[in-house]
Amino acid sequence: MPTFDYSNPVKFHFGLGRHKQVGDIAHPYGKKALLVASDSSKPTGQLQAVQQSLTEAGVAFVVYDRFMQNPLSTLVAEGAQVAADEGCDLVIGLGGGSAMDMAKGIAFSAVNEGSIWDYVFGRKVGTRALPIILIPTTAGTGSEANRTAVFTNPETNDKKGLVNPLIYPKAAIIDPELMLTLPKRVIAGPGADVLFHALESFISKNATPFSEMLSLRAIELIAQNLPLVYDDVTNVAAWENVTLASSLAGMAIDCAGTTLPHALQHPMGGLLDVVHAEGIAAIYKPFMEYTWPAAPEKFAAIAKAMGVDTRDMSQEQAAESSVAAVHQFLTGINMVPTLTQLGVREEHFDWLINNVLTTMKFVLSNNPRVPDGEKIREIYQGCL
Amino acid sequence: MPTFDYSNPVKFHFGLGRHKQVGDIAHPYGKKALLVASDSSKPTGQLQAVQQSLTEAGVAFVVYDRFMQNPLSTLVAEGAQVAADEGCDLVIGLGGGSAMDMAKGIAFSAVNEGSIWDYVFGRKVGTRALPIILIPTTAGTGSEANRTAVFTNPETNDKKGLVNPLIYPKAAIIDPELMLTLPKRVIAGPGADVLFHALESFISKNATPFSEMLSLRAIELIAQNLPLVYDDVTNVAAWENVTLASSLAGMAIDCAGTTLPHALQHPMGGLLDVVHAEGIAAIYKPFMEYTWPAAPEKFAAIAKAMGVDTRDMSQEQAAESSVAAVHQFLTGINMVPTLTQLGVREEHFDWLINNVLTTMKFVLSNNPRVPDGEKIREIYQGCL
Repeated sequence: MPTFDYSNPVKFHFGLGRHKQVGDIAHPYGKKALLVASDSSKPTGQLQAVQQSLTEAGVAFVVYDRFMQNPLSTLVAEGAQVAADEGCDLVIGLGGGSAMDMAKGIAFSAVNEGSIWDYVFGRKVGTRALPIILIPTTAGTGSEANRTAVFTNPETNDKKGLVNPLIYPKAAIIDPELMLTLPKRVIAGPGADVLFHALESFISKNATPFSEMLSLRAIELIAQNLPLVYDDVTNVAAWENVTLASSLAGMAIDCAGTTLPHALQHPMGGLLDVVHAEGIAAIYKPFMEYTWPAAPEKFAAIAKAMGVDTRDMSQEQAAESSVAAVHQFLTGINMVPTLTQLGVREEHFDWLINNVLTTMKFVLSNNPRVPDGEKIREIYQGCL
Repeated sequence: MPTFDYSNPVKFHFGLGRHKQVGDIAHPYGKKALLVASDSSKPTGQLQAVQQSLTEAGVAFVVYDRFMQNPLSTLVAEGAQVAADEGCDLVIGLGGGSAMDMAKGIAFSAVNEGSIWDYVFGRKVGTRALPIILIPTTAGTGSEANRTAVFTNPETNDKKGLVNPLIYPKAAIIDPELMLTLPKRVIAGPGADVLFHALESFISKNATPFSEMLSLRAIELIAQNLPLVYDDVTNVAAWENVTLASSLAGMAIDCAGTTLPHALQHPMGGLLDVVHAEGIAAIYKPFMEYTWPAAPEKFAAIAKAMGVDTRDMSQEQAAESSVAAVHQFLTGINMVPTLTQLGVREEHFDWLINNVLTTMKFVLSNNPRVPDGEKIREIYQGCL
């Protein structure tokens, strides 16, 4: 066992109806919040409930709702300006991964000078951030559980994460009630992402005995429960497990990072605005086929956690069976797109591969088996 | 699933040789440390290595080494006075559970007026504590991972824990190297305590989905690895797993507490200075026999985590099999004492039972099945 560190300062509040406690939870951290809210939080009444709770607790707020599916760094800068102009001393994010990452970026940019990309690429070091409280309305990116926020640069099309302990949320409110009206596509995509985070953090070269525990438990919970909520969005008990899995996986990637699929997807998100989970799902099968022989013990454990009865299998058989198990899971939630369906064409490959090998080099190197440019082209090609 | 919260702010540093990094780890937190060191840290060279690391990092220190197997609140007060007189702004604990709990108590008492018992019993609320860094030399109490410190009042014989977020360590250094010379009795006792913490937190009425994950993983690791280090104290790989299990179990009791065995042991420790793990071990079998029918699904999971092949068993059979599995585990490390061997006699029962039902009432109520005074007497009686 190599040496490793573990810490996670987030205060987690899990459970049905907890979003209505946001006022009391936020109160110790600030007097006036920039409330970064997704569009979907409006018709569902979620935004209104959060506003009411803040008002009751005496926390003032300004709503900021300008962002896209892949959060743009330009809008982070704009939001930070609003926070400064309005005198906000706290940022609350209510929504999916985009809203939460936007909230993290704004909380950071509001008190650190210059372009956020200087901090993303390590050219500058931040000093502090406004306190952050996150309330996911999808399950999810797990952003509520860690110190990462991913942004897209509209000038360069780079899509990359700020990874900084300053943007750990002070508190995360994980409330299954917020999931009970999600459309199937927003169950499937974020839900698949939970599996991707859990699986990739588990096989990552940076995995630790602690993160492996988090990852495996997330795999078990998501494999058992995502199909249930996909079939019946009102299944509260299953949502409790899915939302917990999302946060566990978010904690796990905080320790161990992600691997090849995220490295190959980010450039697609940056260049073509491909939906995160769909881009990853499109390349998952060839990724697993390529990778399992380099870590058969890990993939055997994944198969078991996915519910495969591996008792009478050799380690290699069990490892290989994980590929079909994951494919079956993704098929069951209608998450097996082709790259062609997502708008990726052969003419994009050169740019994508170059971006993988530069911007996403570190994430790629976490994979137990690291492909060169030719192999990456082959993987993209096979997924068209 | 009920609502639940989870947080743990400790920065964990796991791995071989990490205790030599204490200087760099302590440096951000203070200029002068009260170094609370167990006797065993001296002949092993551990104290010297810690002192050298602190000196190299420019952290001054004063050694405090006055404590007993069950830390006395009078010595906590004395240590706090030394810390104040010497101008210490940091407390480092190096040793087993006693040294760590002593360090926590001193860090708290140094900056909160009056008797620590006022805070233990909730009559006063503390405002802050000196920063704490803990380095366990046994595995163990898990005290490095949580906000509890247990003290004995030499006037009343009460033995009870201060549970306060102010005494979470800032950092914990969990170094298997410190375990490589432990005598068998100090492998068995603290090692058994890891199982007790993991098992009791798992069945506790306050268990959460998060703490259950920690507890079960700790059970798996300790069941597999404690017998290995008991047989061969130099088995580094097994120690890595045992020390990790100790911290996981320490995190789990921070969420869920302990149950009946701890409630029945604390009075024995307070009145008769019975060694913590031995007192618990003496009553474990009747505790499990009494309790499993109230939570068969939990005890079935325990059996599986202990390594029992439960595939062809009913839930009840699996649950009942956990009793023999734990008994076998304790027998293998020579931890099946009788109460008579520990100095407990029938004449002590009235005082013990009264103390259980008053001082330890809350811990007792965590048990899935809560005994009355007559039943407690029966349990004690059966363990003589």
